[in-house]
Amino acid sequence: MVLRDVQAGRRNEEGIAAVLEILRGALGDRLQTGQAFREQHAHTTTYLPRQLPDGVVFAETVEDVKLVVKTCAAHHVPVIAFGTGSSLEGQVNAPSGGISLDMTRMDKVLRVSAEDLDVTVEPGVTREALNTYLRDTGLFFPIDPGANASIGGMTATRASGTNAVRYGTMKDNVLSLTVVTADGEEISTGTRARKSSAGYDLTRLFVGSEGTLGVITSITLKLQGIPEKIGGGVCAFQTVKAACDAVIMTIQMGIPVARIELLDETQMKACNAYSGLTYEEKPTLFLEFHGTEETVRLQSEQFAMIAEECGGEGFQWTGDAQQRAKLWKARHDAYWASRALAPHLNGLSTDVCVPISKLADCVADTHADIVENGFLAPIVGHAGDGNFHVLILFDDKDPDDIARAEAFVERLNRRALAAGGTCTGEHGIGQGKMTFLEQEAGPALNLMRAIKQGIDPLDIFNPGKILRSGS
Amino acid sequence: MVLRDVQAGRRNEEGIAAVLEILRGALGDRLQTGQAFREQHAHTTTYLPRQLPDGVVFAETVEDVKLVVKTCAAHHVPVIAFGTGSSLEGQVNAPSGGISLDMTRMDKVLRVSAEDLDVTVEPGVTREALNTYLRDTGLFFPIDPGANASIGGMTATRASGTNAVRYGTMKDNVLSLTVVTADGEEISTGTRARKSSAGYDLTRLFVGSEGTLGVITSITLKLQGIPEKIGGGVCAFQTVKAACDAVIMTIQMGIPVARIELLDETQMKACNAYSGLTYEEKPTLFLEFHGTEETVRLQSEQFAMIAEECGGEGFQWTGDAQQRAKLWKARHDAYWASRALAPHLNGLSTDVCVPISKLADCVADTHADIVENGFLAPIVGHAGDGNFHVLILFDDKDPDDIARAEAFVERLNRRALAAGGTCTGEHGIGQGKMTFLEQEAGPALNLMRAIKQGIDPLDIFNPGKILRSGS
Repeated sequence: MVLRDVQAGRRNEEGIAAVLEILRGALGDRLQTGQAFREQHAHTTTYLPRQLPDGVVFAETVEDVKLVVKTCAAHHVPVIAFGTGSSLEGQVNAPSGGISLDMTRMDKVLRVSAEDLDVTVEPGVTREALNTYLRDTGLFFPIDPGANASIGGMTATRASGTNAVRYGTMKDNVLSLTVVTADGEEISTGTRARKSSAGYDLTRLFVGSEGTLGVITSITLKLQGIPEKIGGGVCAFQTVKAACDAVIMTIQMGIPVARIELLDETQMKACNAYSGLTYEEKPTLFLEFHGTEETVRLQSEQFAMIAEECGGEGFQWTGDAQQRAKLWKARHDAYWASRALAPHLNGLSTDVCVPISKLADCVADTHADIVENGFLAPIVGHAGDGNFHVLILFDDKDPDDIARAEAFVERLNRRALAAGGTCTGEHGIGQGKMTFLEQEAGPALNLMRAIKQGIDPLDIFNPGKILRSGS
Repeated sequence: MVLRDVQAGRRNEEGIAAVLEILRGALGDRLQTGQAFREQHAHTTTYLPRQLPDGVVFAETVEDVKLVVKTCAAHHVPVIAFGTGSSLEGQVNAPSGGISLDMTRMDKVLRVSAEDLDVTVEPGVTREALNTYLRDTGLFFPIDPGANASIGGMTATRASGTNAVRYGTMKDNVLSLTVVTADGEEISTGTRARKSSAGYDLTRLFVGSEGTLGVITSITLKLQGIPEKIGGGVCAFQTVKAACDAVIMTIQMGIPVARIELLDETQMKACNAYSGLTYEEKPTLFLEFHGTEETVRLQSEQFAMIAEECGGEGFQWTGDAQQRAKLWKARHDAYWASRALAPHLNGLSTDVCVPISKLADCVADTHADIVENGFLAPIVGHAGDGNFHVLILFDDKDPDDIARAEAFVERLNRRALAAGGTCTGEHGIGQGKMTFLEQEAGPALNLMRAIKQGIDPLDIFNPGKILRSGS
């Protein structure tokens, strides 16, 4: 299968051979070149075909990272940082071969300050491991993209997820980073101060750079106090538009909702079947409120009024932790639930994000497109941010089906851009969205190229992602 | 007076003459070259000596900006964007001469969306003008650096101010920008979507770049709903440390305070005298809470308990708008009040920002330094962010006094960096803090240089700021 934009790059065979030899000598079995390792490191929850690296290094220290970067730089060989492989747009593929730098063994929490509400972690710490670690501090790290991704990977792709509507995205929650840059040395992008006007915002530049500017070696994150009270609820609507209208009113009224997720009827059907639930198979909002007993009650009452006004049915409310866990487990399993609708098909997960006032129309038009073209394609969205996902189930053996899926994605992106939105709210560009980034950024793409060229002049860091290699 | 780091740069006399001639022909009296205009455009609320531009262009349209940039680029002549001139670290000086590009006539609100809680403005709109414009929408723009700065200037210096503790800084409140870059064309750094993972974060790169990467031509900002209820209060403490401890506890308990400002006894004395107030002349916190009747009451009760625990005296509380306005007018006039303590002296306003757990010690040590060295130097801080300012009153005719003031600033910055903080929370680098940025950023400065070189290869945009020219 060849999908648009996923082409092989030029391979520097001589350099690759030299790098493998040097690293084998220096790292022993921390370098692996077996087919299984290489395949696993080009594998993501993606529709894109695999492009294997030539070797996988399991970094254990910053010194390992420096060594790999220096060696690869000396021989002009790609370095592709790898977290848990849960990215969706081909971010860990190796179109020109090279070294996959697996960061999972760098999984220590380096320091935590309950006083300053911050923590410093190595990139391989996963968000679940971090929250387990923090359990006794009364603090938590709120960003939750669904997958148990690594903090390094979440930083690199500017992840967000279900509760970004309240706590922001990785851009808002990373205080500073250390990064090994193209010269093989480690820099710090900032301090632990809550704010700074000290020069260019290198932290925000690396957040979302998808491994194309350097290898992240530690991340200092803001933390939040665990809310005194958490409440959750579910509400079905007659139409996707009615559900979106309820979201818009909730945001506009300034209700500090912690999560407000939209699942369309296809997604609800999938979730019911997969997670053994019995919800109505109608467009539905999943909600969560954080606060005190008092404020959570107040927020849920305010939302109930909005829901009623939008024709919402039977707003089911629960303060019970177990029921809530079940609810969000079902939401987090939405991807797998959808895939289970048609196990013989592949899934293309794509996301766009639009201004909230355009959300209802954009989702409704997308829904109409799906129906009109006979796709099996559940919609699920972080509706409070104007961000939604479509999972198109398609036959990756059938060139016509691939072409139809690609045409759908193109229409979806054009629709989002026309609405003043962006081609990706949280999945990133990787290989899959380069065409749409070009459309969205226009001449601003030249600045991105200038930055890439200035910081990584040899194009060794994750080449062929975000920007076309050699462009 | 020559202060460290404020040296004249190399002047391109031939290029400057050519540019002035071209612009005179094209712009008529939108170009001004009289001494008064040039002096006014090198003047800021700063201790730094003036370095005059050769001409001032009053841009009225994006086309004017493009023309100036293209002409200056063609002749290698500096372009220094100018807002209201309220920057503090020499950001609008012209060490190599060139054109001051005054943006104050580009002062239109271009669009506002109450539904999306956002607005797009030209750079010359001031924050007060914006809030006046928004009055009937029920929305407001929260960032408040004290001075009635322009939104363009606030964006360029990553401004924050009194209520950043609740609403964040410019980095958190700018959705996207349009910018005229070195080729004289206008680019857009993003969309109106609330979040995006589409490539490098150009928006955050331009926020805080102090005019060194391009000229901002429009800014799309997030807005907030005007709180249903605002309450304010004042509380005196025995020591600066006790006041800081109260701030730390407030933040750690997660009380969503909208403003929490620290004024030391010298500052209180200055404010009482200047604003005709009768507060106790002790370290004092000024507070503001935003919310509903209920939540504001709750927050103020929680704070009152904390204040009592820290030995705070007579927490005076008011929901009255007029009294509150008087309070914050006094706070905003703190700079002028301090200058009035010794009208024959000049004032050096400097700021640092540290992790909140270090704030009490850092302020106490700074206070001890002031006492020990016999400075007249009020301290005032956005304490909730760990950010504080010192205004050192010094005789700018006396080389010894200049040296003593500079040595104090150096100690202050060393103290902040040692505490894991930053050399500036909100004033920016300009010319005054380049030495401290070098210390703070270390090898990361090379990345800033690479970015500058990549985006502005001729170094025409505000040369000699943030980074040394030709470095």
